[in-house]
Amino acid sequence: MKTFLVLILVISCSHHSETKKQTDPLASWNDTSLKKSILSFVKDVTNSESKNYIPPEDRIATFDNDGTLWAEQPPIQAIFTEAIAQKKGFKHKPLKDMNEKQLLDLVLKTNTGMSADDYYMSVKQFFDQGNYNHKTYLPQIELIRYLTQHGFKVYISSGGTVDFMRVISRSYYGIPEEQVIGTSFEYDYDEKTNTIFRKPKIVTINDGESKAHNIQRIIGKRPVFACGNVRSGGDVYMLRFSQGSRYKTFQLMINHDDAEREFSYQEKDNKSLNWAKQYQWNVLSIKDDWKKIFPDS
Amino acid sequence: MKTFLVLILVISCSHHSETKKQTDPLASWNDTSLKKSILSFVKDVTNSESKNYIPPEDRIATFDNDGTLWAEQPPIQAIFTEAIAQKKGFKHKPLKDMNEKQLLDLVLKTNTGMSADDYYMSVKQFFDQGNYNHKTYLPQIELIRYLTQHGFKVYISSGGTVDFMRVISRSYYGIPEEQVIGTSFEYDYDEKTNTIFRKPKIVTINDGESKAHNIQRIIGKRPVFACGNVRSGGDVYMLRFSQGSRYKTFQLMINHDDAEREFSYQEKDNKSLNWAKQYQWNVLSIKDDWKKIFPDS
Repeated sequence: MKTFLVLILVISCSHHSETKKQTDPLASWNDTSLKKSILSFVKDVTNSESKNYIPPEDRIATFDNDGTLWAEQPPIQAIFTEAIAQKKGFKHKPLKDMNEKQLLDLVLKTNTGMSADDYYMSVKQFFDQGNYNHKTYLPQIELIRYLTQHGFKVYISSGGTVDFMRVISRSYYGIPEEQVIGTSFEYDYDEKTNTIFRKPKIVTINDGESKAHNIQRIIGKRPVFACGNVRSGGDVYMLRFSQGSRYKTFQLMINHDDAEREFSYQEKDNKSLNWAKQYQWNVLSIKDDWKKIFPDS
Repeated sequence: MKTFLVLILVISCSHHSETKKQTDPLASWNDTSLKKSILSFVKDVTNSESKNYIPPEDRIATFDNDGTLWAEQPPIQAIFTEAIAQKKGFKHKPLKDMNEKQLLDLVLKTNTGMSADDYYMSVKQFFDQGNYNHKTYLPQIELIRYLTQHGFKVYISSGGTVDFMRVISRSYYGIPEEQVIGTSFEYDYDEKTNTIFRKPKIVTINDGESKAHNIQRIIGKRPVFACGNVRSGGDVYMLRFSQGSRYKTFQLMINHDDAEREFSYQEKDNKSLNWAKQYQWNVLSIKDDWKKIFPDS
């Protein structure tokens, strides 16, 4: 009887007896004060005894994509757009010489005019053929995982087009397709063929102030953790919007200052860093704060 | 030693030894063939050995709200709209005498023109003062809970305005705020006051074909379970859209045929029931399929 009981104990409760390894959830980050701030913020707001406790349903985190979750030089969606343009025989100037209107026209010509199912297949093929996984930032993948494990619902909110990013959001970042907000187009639905048709007309360009609008419209609450990057000033409204939460919040602005391992670039008007200073956001230096930038290929 | 072990066994493993009560997850439903179909669909698609297995990430369910999750006579948002109109001293015809354009004008006048935070407070106050909980359908609350427990992500997709429904989606139905899709308005964001301002301009009326568009835009995948009701034909596109999934799917069309306990009404053109027949959807008879309609007050 005694042996029998011991046996049951071992079998039934083996999951209780696993040694909890103290692994570093942010192993690719240097042990800087920024890393400590992130860990201490999450520890604080998920501690039910803390005055800063945030209930799980309000733990919303939003991340930009280009330059925040993966490298944006060159933009991966531009590579896709160029590939489709070539395939379809569209003549165009090199992307780098285009003004914004010309680029938008080319994106419309190449990313619409087909069914949602066909578009999905062409994006999937693009990602199957070229390996862009090595362009993602390993420290950010760790951060997303860490936040998710602590009950945060992590969204992408990016200027990239929503149906493009969704194809890889789960496999690259562990972010569900329905937690992606992006630039989107008008649709037509035809019930006979049961297809959604992608029309060459913009519904929303998810950049600048629109990031606040679309987060309000789609999520319906302010993020308590918001992360973007220096380059176009497109993320400052999202970070500022998160500061209006009734909870304690965390704003993270990524500065690309590592010409050796990644890129070094600034904004013309320095808006992102100016707002970061004015509103006391956390500024991340890729050079100093990230030990390792890209995953092993 | 023996006693000690037994004690550990009891403490550590008490959650394993709970007697599993065979409670009926759909207790307010009559034991009709429809109830059996729902139970058997869920059992099938969540069984990893079945050829119809749906992985959890693709278990998307969408429900209309008015007439599907709560009674729509009179529409609760119309009561709110009328209350605000009275408070602001807007003169208007009785709602039942208005045409669609006049009603939309009044909705715009009363549901926009303030900050998102102020709007939230006024809706919250409305629901705190009047008790509309007893207007919800108990069998549907059971169904949402049952689907959720089986790994489905349940969304509302309704013609009601999104920021209105979100105030009660969690407390009434157990549906998170960010899983509500509805009619929505344009916003302005002002970073100085850190407020979203609700502009009197429609972005989308989430009805008819737009339900397919907005589900594609916001969720990015077809629902595998979709439920709407007979009255305006506004849900048929959502149900049809779900049938284009690569998985086994379930369409549920609620027919209000219970004048005694709820309401009995038809559509002028009978579109919802015609489509239900043509596309072989499940038609729910409130009279026959629901044992109990409303929760105890």
